[in-house]
Amino acid sequence: MPRPANPETRSRLLEKGGDLVSSRGFNATGVQEITAAAGVPKGSFYNYFDSKEAFAVEILSDYWDSIVALYGPILADRHAPPLSRIARYFAGLAEFHARRQYAFGCLIGNMALEVTPSSEEVRVKLAAIYREWATSLAECLREAQARKELAPDRDARQLAVALIDTFEGAVMRAKVERSRAPFDSFERCVLPCLLD
Amino acid sequence: MPRPANPETRSRLLEKGGDLVSSRGFNATGVQEITAAAGVPKGSFYNYFDSKEAFAVEILSDYWDSIVALYGPILADRHAPPLSRIARYFAGLAEFHARRQYAFGCLIGNMALEVTPSSEEVRVKLAAIYREWATSLAECLREAQARKELAPDRDARQLAVALIDTFEGAVMRAKVERSRAPFDSFERCVLPCLLD
Repeated sequence: MPRPANPETRSRLLEKGGDLVSSRGFNATGVQEITAAAGVPKGSFYNYFDSKEAFAVEILSDYWDSIVALYGPILADRHAPPLSRIARYFAGLAEFHARRQYAFGCLIGNMALEVTPSSEEVRVKLAAIYREWATSLAECLREAQARKELAPDRDARQLAVALIDTFEGAVMRAKVERSRAPFDSFERCVLPCLLD
Repeated sequence: MPRPANPETRSRLLEKGGDLVSSRGFNATGVQEITAAAGVPKGSFYNYFDSKEAFAVEILSDYWDSIVALYGPILADRHAPPLSRIARYFAGLAEFHARRQYAFGCLIGNMALEVTPSSEEVRVKLAAIYREWATSLAECLREAQARKELAPDRDARQLAVALIDTFEGAVMRAKVERSRAPFDSFERCVLPCLLD
């Protein structure tokens, strides 16, 4: 019979396990390493998560929630001009990756490429995160249209996903080049072009 | 003592192993599975490759060479207008991913996210592939400038990497959404914007 779940242990598993998965990849990280990093017995993992894939969905949720908490307010700040908010939002995300020396990449992108083929559960979660991400950017772009910062005939949703795709591609290249250059290219070349 | 290497076995290891790595990921694929898929004894792997990472570099080389062989001629065809060649080049790559049901993603992107943190050898190879890719696109963009299809003040190299980043981001999202939509967005929204 499973022992009663301890919310602190659960948080610690998510935090320490999330760090391991971010740095090494999901398939290269075993349940035993996750429990060892959290300082709990291996068996207790399954008191908290039905499977390693269910755990992956939870760390993705946590990762996305922390991005939303940190950078969401920049996008939602209706006192600033919408296009400048989008620029500051992506600059904030670039800063986030810079602080991690570009080595970890974005957990959303990492999981998209590594885990999607083997787990429908993770794929569905990622699709939901992509949708939510695109919705928050498209909202800001529509506000830019209402304030005449952006042409009214531009498709805000399509523009939003194009921004996400280019940014995720830049995160990927930054991981290979271990440099800020891909983010500079995003800020100087892609943003001005797409939001013209 | 290693047995004499057989070029056919080597090709079979690269082909079958490359398929496994493309579909499941690098860390999730063991040497034993690669040799089993190629129908050779496990120990023989190391007659051909110094390490699993050296094998990764080889399958990346093969993948990139096949992309260059298939789609490079479209970019290099100096009889056609340069910007139309770039559009046809990316349409060809999108078709390549469509034929694989968007499930595998691009081996370059997959390896960039999964293997870069643990293997400097793979990281260096990927950086070289990115450089070569950007060079071939930038060359075509400069030709577009010479033929007055593209403004002369645009930075061809920066534009080239922006195209690569957005395309790789689209491949990633296509893997999550299992659909062509990210490529449609690339063709309809990003290409016309960036190459305007």
